[in-house]
Amino acid sequence: MRLLGIDPGLNITGYGCIEGSPERPSLVEAGVFRLGKKSPGRKAASIAERLDELDRDFRLLLERLRPEAVGVEALFAHYKHPTTAIVMGHARGVLLLAIRQAGLDLVELKPTEVKKSLTGHGHASKEQMQESVRGVFGLAERPEPADVADAIAVALCARRRLLLGERLSPALEEAVRPKRVKTA
Amino acid sequence: MRLLGIDPGLNITGYGCIEGSPERPSLVEAGVFRLGKKSPGRKAASIAERLDELDRDFRLLLERLRPEAVGVEALFAHYKHPTTAIVMGHARGVLLLAIRQAGLDLVELKPTEVKKSLTGHGHASKEQMQESVRGVFGLAERPEPADVADAIAVALCARRRLLLGERLSPALEEAVRPKRVKTA
Repeated sequence: MRLLGIDPGLNITGYGCIEGSPERPSLVEAGVFRLGKKSPGRKAASIAERLDELDRDFRLLLERLRPEAVGVEALFAHYKHPTTAIVMGHARGVLLLAIRQAGLDLVELKPTEVKKSLTGHGHASKEQMQESVRGVFGLAERPEPADVADAIAVALCARRRLLLGERLSPALEEAVRPKRVKTA
Repeated sequence: MRLLGIDPGLNITGYGCIEGSPERPSLVEAGVFRLGKKSPGRKAASIAERLDELDRDFRLLLERLRPEAVGVEALFAHYKHPTTAIVMGHARGVLLLAIRQAGLDLVELKPTEVKKSLTGHGHASKEQMQESVRGVFGLAERPEPADVADAIAVALCARRRLLLGERLSPALEEAVRPKRVKTA
């Protein structure tokens, strides 16, 4: 099973793609999209320009990596910075649309669920997340920036959810529970 | 000049298209997209499904009405309901992307600016907005639901901003101020 995890944002969107057996996941590719980069003599990009950039980059990524499902953190309301959250909603909307239009399954995960699944703590720090991801794949260094580690963590947690068949979205429920046949 | 105004939402997105001379604007078409409608035996649509529906409906609308510019209310942080605002951000992101990809100019307006421009009050009620829109176009009845009136108000306010050349987005500044030639 090949899974892509995303950590959406309008400045940086992290992604991480994993595959392999349940016991030995392997890292296919991970990275970030840096949106609206300023270049000399160029004004800062508008939100619409960034969304366009994100849309194009992300659709190319889906084509290239061809994951079977994509994990994204679920919406949550208790943000410290409401404006940031609303702006993030813009990026997330564009990503969900592309996932849907590519016909891929979507796994939504709570941020605390992702952190707990990887570190055992629902409120792990960025550094703890980076260190855990480093450990899982035996990387020489911690993934940088933290957005990459978060995206990989989302992919790992999404895979775990799919394998365990726990708390699935209705669409996935059928796909991952084929063994529930009538035994009468 | 033909202008489209939008009032984004994931349940209802209102739109209003106007054109005509500055003194006598005329209403081309206005309405709402109702997203994720439940039908018997069908589950409530997911956010991704609604975004997909919105994206398709909106792109068809742009093709059909062919506006020169599109007005949308700007982001603002002081929402009473943060979750609603974040969800609205998803819809807004999808709309901004479609506007950008259609190569149309975008006019972002503060909600208070729209209300003030139409009623003289920055905190006008929904009913006052509906009544003002009714008056401008000499309609027999108030536009319903309120989302339609809001979208038409956004279009009117965007046109006013473009005609006055005030507080333009950088992209529009060039387009609407062609008279500023060097006189040396």
